[in-house]
Amino acid sequence: MAPRGGAGPRALLLLLLATALAGEAAAGAAAAALEEEIVSERAAEQSHRQDSANLVIFILLLTLTILTIWLFKHRRARFLHETGLAMIYGVLVGVILRYGIHVPSDVNNVTLSCQVQTSPATLLVNVSGKYYEYTLKGEISPQELNNVQDNEMLRKVTFDPEVFFNILLPPIIFYAGYSLKRRHFFRNLGSILAYAFLGTAISCLMIGSIMYGCVALMKVTGQLGGDFYFTDCLLFGAIVSATDPVTVLAIFHELQVDVELYALLFGESVLNDAVAIVLSSSIVAYQPAGDNSHTFDVMAMLKSIGIFLGIFSGSFAMGAATGVVTALVTKFTKLREFPLLETGLFFLMSWSTFLLAEACGFTGVVAVLFCGITQAHYTYNNLSTESQHRTKQLFELLNFLAENFIFSYMGLALFTFQNHVFNATFVVGAFLAIFLGRAANIYPLSMLLNLGRRNKIGTNIQHMMMFAGLRGAMAFALAIRDTATYARQMMFSTTLLIVFFTVWVFGGGTTAMLSCLNIRVGVDADQENLGVPENERRSTKAESAWLFRMWYNFDHNYLKPLLTHSGPPLTTTLPSCCGPIARCLTSPQAYENQEQLKDDDSDLILNDGDISLTYGDSTVNTDSVTSSGASRRFAGNSSEEALDRELAFGDHELVIRGTRLVLPMDDSEPPSNVLDSARHGPASCTKPEQKDHLFPGDSAIFI
Amino acid sequence: MAPRGGAGPRALLLLLLATALAGEAAAGAAAAALEEEIVSERAAEQSHRQDSANLVIFILLLTLTILTIWLFKHRRARFLHETGLAMIYGVLVGVILRYGIHVPSDVNNVTLSCQVQTSPATLLVNVSGKYYEYTLKGEISPQELNNVQDNEMLRKVTFDPEVFFNILLPPIIFYAGYSLKRRHFFRNLGSILAYAFLGTAISCLMIGSIMYGCVALMKVTGQLGGDFYFTDCLLFGAIVSATDPVTVLAIFHELQVDVELYALLFGESVLNDAVAIVLSSSIVAYQPAGDNSHTFDVMAMLKSIGIFLGIFSGSFAMGAATGVVTALVTKFTKLREFPLLETGLFFLMSWSTFLLAEACGFTGVVAVLFCGITQAHYTYNNLSTESQHRTKQLFELLNFLAENFIFSYMGLALFTFQNHVFNATFVVGAFLAIFLGRAANIYPLSMLLNLGRRNKIGTNIQHMMMFAGLRGAMAFALAIRDTATYARQMMFSTTLLIVFFTVWVFGGGTTAMLSCLNIRVGVDADQENLGVPENERRSTKAESAWLFRMWYNFDHNYLKPLLTHSGPPLTTTLPSCCGPIARCLTSPQAYENQEQLKDDDSDLILNDGDISLTYGDSTVNTDSVTSSGASRRFAGNSSEEALDRELAFGDHELVIRGTRLVLPMDDSEPPSNVLDSARHGPASCTKPEQKDHLFPGDSAIFI
Repeated sequence: MAPRGGAGPRALLLLLLATALAGEAAAGAAAAALEEEIVSERAAEQSHRQDSANLVIFILLLTLTILTIWLFKHRRARFLHETGLAMIYGVLVGVILRYGIHVPSDVNNVTLSCQVQTSPATLLVNVSGKYYEYTLKGEISPQELNNVQDNEMLRKVTFDPEVFFNILLPPIIFYAGYSLKRRHFFRNLGSILAYAFLGTAISCLMIGSIMYGCVALMKVTGQLGGDFYFTDCLLFGAIVSATDPVTVLAIFHELQVDVELYALLFGESVLNDAVAIVLSSSIVAYQPAGDNSHTFDVMAMLKSIGIFLGIFSGSFAMGAATGVVTALVTKFTKLREFPLLETGLFFLMSWSTFLLAEACGFTGVVAVLFCGITQAHYTYNNLSTESQHRTKQLFELLNFLAENFIFSYMGLALFTFQNHVFNATFVVGAFLAIFLGRAANIYPLSMLLNLGRRNKIGTNIQHMMMFAGLRGAMAFALAIRDTATYARQMMFSTTLLIVFFTVWVFGGGTTAMLSCLNIRVGVDADQENLGVPENERRSTKAESAWLFRMWYNFDHNYLKPLLTHSGPPLTTTLPSCCGPIARCLTSPQAYENQEQLKDDDSDLILNDGDISLTYGDSTVNTDSVTSSGASRRFAGNSSEEALDRELAFGDHELVIRGTRLVLPMDDSEPPSNVLDSARHGPASCTKPEQKDHLFPGDSAIFI
Repeated sequence: MAPRGGAGPRALLLLLLATALAGEAAAGAAAAALEEEIVSERAAEQSHRQDSANLVIFILLLTLTILTIWLFKHRRARFLHETGLAMIYGVLVGVILRYGIHVPSDVNNVTLSCQVQTSPATLLVNVSGKYYEYTLKGEISPQELNNVQDNEMLRKVTFDPEVFFNILLPPIIFYAGYSLKRRHFFRNLGSILAYAFLGTAISCLMIGSIMYGCVALMKVTGQLGGDFYFTDCLLFGAIVSATDPVTVLAIFHELQVDVELYALLFGESVLNDAVAIVLSSSIVAYQPAGDNSHTFDVMAMLKSIGIFLGIFSGSFAMGAATGVVTALVTKFTKLREFPLLETGLFFLMSWSTFLLAEACGFTGVVAVLFCGITQAHYTYNNLSTESQHRTKQLFELLNFLAENFIFSYMGLALFTFQNHVFNATFVVGAFLAIFLGRAANIYPLSMLLNLGRRNKIGTNIQHMMMFAGLRGAMAFALAIRDTATYARQMMFSTTLLIVFFTVWVFGGGTTAMLSCLNIRVGVDADQENLGVPENERRSTKAESAWLFRMWYNFDHNYLKPLLTHSGPPLTTTLPSCCGPIARCLTSPQAYENQEQLKDDDSDLILNDGDISLTYGDSTVNTDSVTSSGASRRFAGNSSEEALDRELAFGDHELVIRGTRLVLPMDDSEPPSNVLDSARHGPASCTKPEQKDHLFPGDSAIFI
């Protein structure tokens, strides 16, 4: 629903009922009225048909993309990821629409000068006795006035930028949070937070400063066609600091690259999207007192910083709260008996996060991110197996469609956007700036982090992270959000070029870079930590980040038992004064499962020592199969030992997430569980040919 | 995207650049401009926040509904189905919004009289030097003018009626077609078509006539407040002829009611929605020549009939064409290796049907219905097992959410719609009319059909069909589509009451009615036809409807081999002149599968004689498990014998659709595969306690 302008601070009710049109006979007026009605009905219908036709164009784009992706996957072509492909198709269609199709500018525009003090939200126009309602769409800048007369076709395929933030980005960001590989995420939490917050701030400042210098140079050489303030430069810095290495991560996943690198890159990209969006809002909200809105004002800056912190924490709180509520609801009801209801509830609660955050003035996208992480960490364990699959698949599909749609639109926008401002100096400066900004982000921070990390971030990993700073959907959406002024248009055009270049060139060069940097691939996450000797494990535990330990203990002893069915039960961990409450909040299973719910990303866990398939007996002994509610039988109970185990074993369980294990009944049906999760989190750590690794011996009953 | 008014028949470009506002100093003007900009930005943001808050209300409604549904299912309460429940919650919230919350009417409206000949699609308003763009929303009737000043809250929660046709109804109707129980549908095709087309026409005429009498009475007694023509009465007849027995079907499914009754009722409801929507469009399109638009004009009537036939067949063709294209694409590519891609493609193609139909001026909803049926009949067989589940679950969820949303909105509309016209005479007349209309539809047609049917439609079945004529989403959507005139408003208000009454009263009384009419329940579809003696089977075949036989042969010999991997291969069925084409179009599997692909609704078929679980060997023999591409080993090849088998065995296979068989590893996890498909087609024919029925003996390896 397009915004319609509701309550404003001023309440005006001006009824200017002037005289009707002269010069039309009564019968003629009636006939004209009827014809008028038909005309406007037909106009509305024409418009509806046009809108449908426009959407068909996009569906065609997406269909082409899907078929070509399949072709590439079929031939194992890794030089072009689906997002880069979608962009190419978008560019092609953009060219066709721009130069191939000419829709006669059949314009029905009227410019009125009305005696109003303000632009009302709703306008009632009296045309020969009939009233027509008009809604405020927005302000039009003078140069756009000409566009309005221009190629109607291009205008038609241009979406309201808010579509990205309200419809397309939420599923993408939610899925990123929901499919987060939590173990590695939390283990590297400190580093990821550092890169996301400090790194983005550094990058923003660095890029802003360089661009300011560039803009000053342009001013001196007379290339600058309009105003370009430092706040604009900072905004540009915030916009292009949002990395989106979806291409790189997909390749990492396929090749099973070093888990640590994957976790760092993924975690950083997911969080710095959130940081970038709130940062850009804060910069835009910079309103110094006085007439000149672009001077430096400490109070205004502090206010902006306050806005940043307020919005970020508010969005975080809202997202986490909804996740917690969903976890409690799924824990204390037996909704799991009905996967359809459970999935529906899950979807609605997650969607409501976005709407609630937006309604409260926070950032919906950031809220859904943290909602996704919370849902993955708590609610997921309460869902029935069926619902786990359904929710994962649902959001995987939404993510896939939304992402490719945005990238197609990016390609299209290169030709359909009518106010591009390409300036060679600015573009070159921008590329230089993002390169230096990324370097200033990665290298100094890595050095600092390595002082505190046991598992150092190697230089080749740092180089890879430097290389993998692709820009994508978030940068594009932030840039297109407001293209009213000259500065913003130049920023948008440049951002578009940056996205194209990084996705096509860096994305395509990932595989080469991996071998060049000697990053290990084919890492079997199962074996990742098994080789670590015992004494090292203990010292690993002893030296692991205090942040992680603190979080882990709190989560293990209080949050997990509260929100899921895992043990230890709250009755044991809470002080005795909270006895009644604890009893109330503890589910029956928690008493049975004195151990912590196996904190992992797996749906089914099969481990070397755990399977005992008994064929004589008709039931398969699935001692180690954890469905929600069950747990592993660990020796000992203390969270310390659990933490130890956590750190030692790592991800050696096999992660089978999001897809059913396909019964290999038909040999012509290859397993489809590896290559599907294109982006976030491996669906399975096994390569197809390692299918047999799952079980000891040759037993082939797959569960 | 709200329609923005594209190209109209007249091209006007009127630039009336009049003088700017006087009386504001330059600096003041600048400050005012800035403030103005902030004001309108804030207004837009406020509006956005309000829109988000409104959607939260609906999400809250749906969440409450889901939780209460679970509660009801938990306690096996069958007197109130989820749709009736959603309506109740909608009514409650409507009361709260109407009488509990008073949003000060902070109205920003301006009525202008402008010297324009027509209402342009886009309006540019010059306000002190800034240009604002306004888009035509639609015409406002005089009484609505007052509403514009009224409670803003109510206006905010009112959706544009096109939302129903463009966003909410398509998933519901598509799912209805996609989950159609095809076997029974095609077996009763003649009867279903008769009820849907003839029956709806009869009902429409009957209701229209009765209402015309009623309206004449009202006119005489002076109750009529506006014009009410015969075309309006006919339109009302078309609107309320659209039955929507979703409640009844859900109860039928749970109780496993007589399969024939289920098929007739479901098929009729699905098709008569399509007929009603096109019929109402045709009636609205009735435009006789001359001044008076409501006289009887044969040419206009013929034109309307032509429009009906044209739109219906055009939509049918479009839907079927997209289904065929999808079938071919999934057949000739190996997309099945990647369920995500396959599901994405399936979704996009189905969605494109709707858009294409709308773009071409047909009815998108009707197109998606036939697309759904085609997809279920052909494409489904080509999908991988994973994709079959994913697509079913995806559309099941969309259907569930959309349906409950509409019913919630119905309850809400009772209080939020501001132009209700309740008239006791009209309402009573309407109830009488729909009763008689339904009777005139069911009983005569059943009598006629029984002359030709071997398997007569019993009188108790006819009574049940009479009883089960509930109205729902389609009637509501058609009624709310246009509420500009007095007549339409009265029709809308009455339709709302009809929906409430039929859903709550008839829906609630279904179970009682079933026992009252002695309709058999607990019908195990497996056993349905096994008891039919051999000689009866043959005569059944001999006497089965020629329509069905014709269709079956054509489908078996040509369409299925063309669009799926089933045999007999086209090389054998097509004449030799088409040899090269036939070879090109026949897939390798078709040569192996000399038999017809088992035409059923099942994902996995487990039948008494087919399972041979070998436990010594580690692989489970799943001879009878059909994945796409496999087939049953039938004796003989002729389509006649296949037809015979088709008719004889019926649905004796166990239908397990849409859900995975859940491994009962954990006793606390009850099977979730029966009660989920609330509406269309049983997910499984077994009741939960009959879980063991699936397998011979006590073997408990579930596949």
